[in-house]
Amino acid sequence: MAIQAAILVIGDEILSGRTQDTNTHYIARFLTALGIDLREARVVGDVEDEIVAGLNALRASYDFVFTTGGIGPTHDDITADAVARAFDVGIGYHPEAYALLEARYPPGEFNDMRKRMARIPHGATLVANSVSGAPGFHIGNVYVMAGVPMVMRAMLEAIAPELPRGAPVTAVTVEAAIPEGAIAPGLAALQKEHKEVAIGSYPFYREGSAAPFGAQLVVRGRDGAVVEAAAVALEALLTSLGAAPQRIKS
Amino acid sequence: MAIQAAILVIGDEILSGRTQDTNTHYIARFLTALGIDLREARVVGDVEDEIVAGLNALRASYDFVFTTGGIGPTHDDITADAVARAFDVGIGYHPEAYALLEARYPPGEFNDMRKRMARIPHGATLVANSVSGAPGFHIGNVYVMAGVPMVMRAMLEAIAPELPRGAPVTAVTVEAAIPEGAIAPGLAALQKEHKEVAIGSYPFYREGSAAPFGAQLVVRGRDGAVVEAAAVALEALLTSLGAAPQRIKS
Repeated sequence: MAIQAAILVIGDEILSGRTQDTNTHYIARFLTALGIDLREARVVGDVEDEIVAGLNALRASYDFVFTTGGIGPTHDDITADAVARAFDVGIGYHPEAYALLEARYPPGEFNDMRKRMARIPHGATLVANSVSGAPGFHIGNVYVMAGVPMVMRAMLEAIAPELPRGAPVTAVTVEAAIPEGAIAPGLAALQKEHKEVAIGSYPFYREGSAAPFGAQLVVRGRDGAVVEAAAVALEALLTSLGAAPQRIKS
Repeated sequence: MAIQAAILVIGDEILSGRTQDTNTHYIARFLTALGIDLREARVVGDVEDEIVAGLNALRASYDFVFTTGGIGPTHDDITADAVARAFDVGIGYHPEAYALLEARYPPGEFNDMRKRMARIPHGATLVANSVSGAPGFHIGNVYVMAGVPMVMRAMLEAIAPELPRGAPVTAVTVEAAIPEGAIAPGLAALQKEHKEVAIGSYPFYREGSAAPFGAQLVVRGRDGAVVEAAAVALEALLTSLGAAPQRIKS
């Protein structure tokens, strides 16, 4: 059984359109490289009830949940409290988090709001933040990370050694300058013959090109030989349709 | 009561990290401009059970749901079937969709897979696609759109006239070159005094700058005068802390 994960993105700024979320894409690639299947992602606002509901749904359904956002010092950073409530545990200053934050500030500048970043649900362990100090944390099957992409990425690096590895997915991408609707019948037959792989079709339109309609066809699976056999059959299909298939880096 | 919406992004390619989703961000901005609150977004793969479950959860919770992806001609395009199942209605060729698709192809090229794009759940109305013809559709409180961004945007334009308008949100963004932790105590007090607005704090780090740590503070609300009063109070707070606040376009 593959290892399955979900992401919970927390932040009004994503839902208002102020900020384009890039963390989901980054984490997706990161997990794929580890052989872990990302199965779902959700975005909720800075609303405790919604964070709790989303987190509880996801942590019950998947092996791991990664959250981003809401662990800074300001009043709208409520993720730690929401996670404590979701797990029905208390929350308070974590001695190690408190000490490392206290050491970062000049005397008198470690104010009550900055101390909020040391509030960690009981039973959680810290996730190091090599960029800006304030840690994330890990409780149960949930990893809680910052929303600032540079910090989130550093936390992901810190988490990586403790994550299990799944069987890596092999993906072969074949591109052809032919409308996907013309490939679709053969592609459906190919998918039926190669049930162990997933074949995805992603059309594109390249304005100004002599043959503007095309598709990238992606064959994915955990058995490299099976993926390769399906990719070769796909290339033969495309050639038979008069397209000139090209493998591309994906 | 504000008008509330959700997005359901459908596609393995988002979860595998092959593709960065940009549709959520675009729809978020679009809805914000209409005064509609985007409250949640979810991403699921090309798995019928998961599409059905996600759609039914979201359409029960929000006034509108917008889906993207999975309405093309290939075997992995299963959104229309999933939507029909979610609504417990039949599905079949929609005469108008069939006719407009048939007209697009030379004789003999309107194959069975392309005809799939004319399969529309019973009771749905079509959403025009001015880019590539194959329509989206609207059923109940759900709008089903393409995943290709250019096509999705055209569909959103087609949908816009039939969407209700909410009271527009006024957002004022104030930037200051001061760490958010130094602003946080005053900001929390300000939020308590101005409960009718939501104040968000988004830290940044600008490498190479003389004062690299800063924050963008966003005041949002539906009463422009109340937002302005809170923004003026925020600027006074920042000035009192020695920062030079600047309003910026957001």
